[in-house]
Amino acid sequence: MTQPSEKAIVPFVSVDNMMRLVHHVGVEQMLKDLTTYVEEDFRRWELFDKTPRVASHSDVGVIELMPTSDGEAYGFKYVNGHPKNTAEGLQTVTAFGLLADVYTGYPVLLTEMTILTALRTAATSAMVAKYLAPKGADTMAMIGNGAQSEFQTLAMKAILGLKSVRLFDKDPAATAKCAANLADTGIDVVICKSPEEAIEGAQILTTCTADKQNATILSDNMVGAGVHINAIGGDCPGKTELAKGILERSDVFVEFPEQTRIEGEIQQMDPDFAVTEMWQVITGQKQGRQDARQITLFDSVGFAIEDFSALRYIREKVVETPFHEDLDMLADPDDPRDLFGMLQRAKS
Amino acid sequence: MTQPSEKAIVPFVSVDNMMRLVHHVGVEQMLKDLTTYVEEDFRRWELFDKTPRVASHSDVGVIELMPTSDGEAYGFKYVNGHPKNTAEGLQTVTAFGLLADVYTGYPVLLTEMTILTALRTAATSAMVAKYLAPKGADTMAMIGNGAQSEFQTLAMKAILGLKSVRLFDKDPAATAKCAANLADTGIDVVICKSPEEAIEGAQILTTCTADKQNATILSDNMVGAGVHINAIGGDCPGKTELAKGILERSDVFVEFPEQTRIEGEIQQMDPDFAVTEMWQVITGQKQGRQDARQITLFDSVGFAIEDFSALRYIREKVVETPFHEDLDMLADPDDPRDLFGMLQRAKS
Repeated sequence: MTQPSEKAIVPFVSVDNMMRLVHHVGVEQMLKDLTTYVEEDFRRWELFDKTPRVASHSDVGVIELMPTSDGEAYGFKYVNGHPKNTAEGLQTVTAFGLLADVYTGYPVLLTEMTILTALRTAATSAMVAKYLAPKGADTMAMIGNGAQSEFQTLAMKAILGLKSVRLFDKDPAATAKCAANLADTGIDVVICKSPEEAIEGAQILTTCTADKQNATILSDNMVGAGVHINAIGGDCPGKTELAKGILERSDVFVEFPEQTRIEGEIQQMDPDFAVTEMWQVITGQKQGRQDARQITLFDSVGFAIEDFSALRYIREKVVETPFHEDLDMLADPDDPRDLFGMLQRAKS
Repeated sequence: MTQPSEKAIVPFVSVDNMMRLVHHVGVEQMLKDLTTYVEEDFRRWELFDKTPRVASHSDVGVIELMPTSDGEAYGFKYVNGHPKNTAEGLQTVTAFGLLADVYTGYPVLLTEMTILTALRTAATSAMVAKYLAPKGADTMAMIGNGAQSEFQTLAMKAILGLKSVRLFDKDPAATAKCAANLADTGIDVVICKSPEEAIEGAQILTTCTADKQNATILSDNMVGAGVHINAIGGDCPGKTELAKGILERSDVFVEFPEQTRIEGEIQQMDPDFAVTEMWQVITGQKQGRQDARQITLFDSVGFAIEDFSALRYIREKVVETPFHEDLDMLADPDDPRDLFGMLQRAKS
């Protein structure tokens, strides 16, 4: 049997290899690198092909495809969201992604994206906080201590120089897990007994809880002037974390308004509620934080361009390393018209 | 390092393993099996989640995602279409597909789909011809002798008992390739010098040419009464193969009208041009061929449900065989909330 040609081979990054790559680069360095890549792509936001995600809903969850393209590369992420999975010992969210060459249509990278999504979400939060958090912010309240909490904390440390994190979760076991995971990272970890205690002295308030329902993790009277709210968990229809009053007092920043109005905290507000697109802040077309007393709010839902940035980074980084396998995924006969002949010759 | 759990592993069928599986089952048997699976899914057409394909166009081609779901399984195909690729020694079309469990959102199969698409396209054509071709049809004109031609011929042999195929292509090398590939299959192969010669005595006229332009492979005066036209190549905007006059004299059968009116031969006709949906013929709600002199026309563009049928078949078939690899594609920590802990433990 003849060997498949080089173009027919797609590099694949397994979960195991992704973890090796993360440790090879270093978690905090990778979060810095990803922040750079995400920021680069936010700068050239306008040239991307932006489609809303393609969702297939069922009673128990959703499966989504999130495609985008910058004209040279095409990427998509497959991601599910099944809140009931946790109780069954499965991940609520699993993901994988693919990058392809627009010129040939051939895939050039297939990779796990469960870990990578956690990293890119944290990198995006930190990239945004760089523009919006009050000067000298060094303390964060982390409300919701699930799978995203350590990544958020380390990204804020790597990019903003965060010194202290104040943890709260309604499940103390989640907080204990997060505190143990952060023990040797150089971050001062404070375990708190209430959301009120967690936000004491914090300039950055990160909410990342998992309930698929309209909840009030932060109520209006809890939030004082001069903070930056990094709202991660309000990310699908019917799932919000903040009291409406907070949104009314904040300047709200979003990724892609069309998607955020459906999935984000602002689904609670009127369709013409004023928001600022982050890419316009990054390109200097709009202002970020304007004064020390302002409340800024990043209503994060996750957008395909952030996954594209992450795929682009992994593709460039992984080729220098052994942390990938070769997948024989594309049929590539010597004569493109002779697919059947290739099949027949494989018999012998 | 702990081993990933069973659910975190996705079976992957490479091109090499797909070819092994085809020969293990037998090409004609697999075409029969796929016909059965496609027909089963056409019977339950109404319960499928039918989304138009999600296309990303560039100057040189298109990359598409084709998702669908029957409520229990979710499938999608990635497929590109780059007509200029052939001249560069690459496939015009490459594809891969994925099947997932709707209940958990976890992928359960990843497979090459370039070969599988060729098989499912031919199986669909034969399934349709079973309902529409004149009784006793045993001769087919095969116009366009590219990558699909041998599969079309063998499917018509396996499902309809085709005895003779009459080949024509404007490139004699393509015809020679097709004739050589069909030499030992028990089919009587006749090499023809013109489309007119190819259709002599044929009850089934299959057109499958590759030009991305409105062409006239069959002109109106070439097509007499009592034939079935299996039009494969008119499958994207601006690409048709049949003279408009033929469509006016034919009863036209389609997969999914919304898609066929954009991509099929009927893009030449008014938006209200009458067509019959094949699933309604198969369930007995509409008539197929009504008399011997009728011209039936299957305006085939390929629909996501056919890919779903093929994915479903491969998933069931491949587990009995060694023709798959295990991909560590889904991060699956013991505690779903402890993704970071899993990453940390992988360091040691």
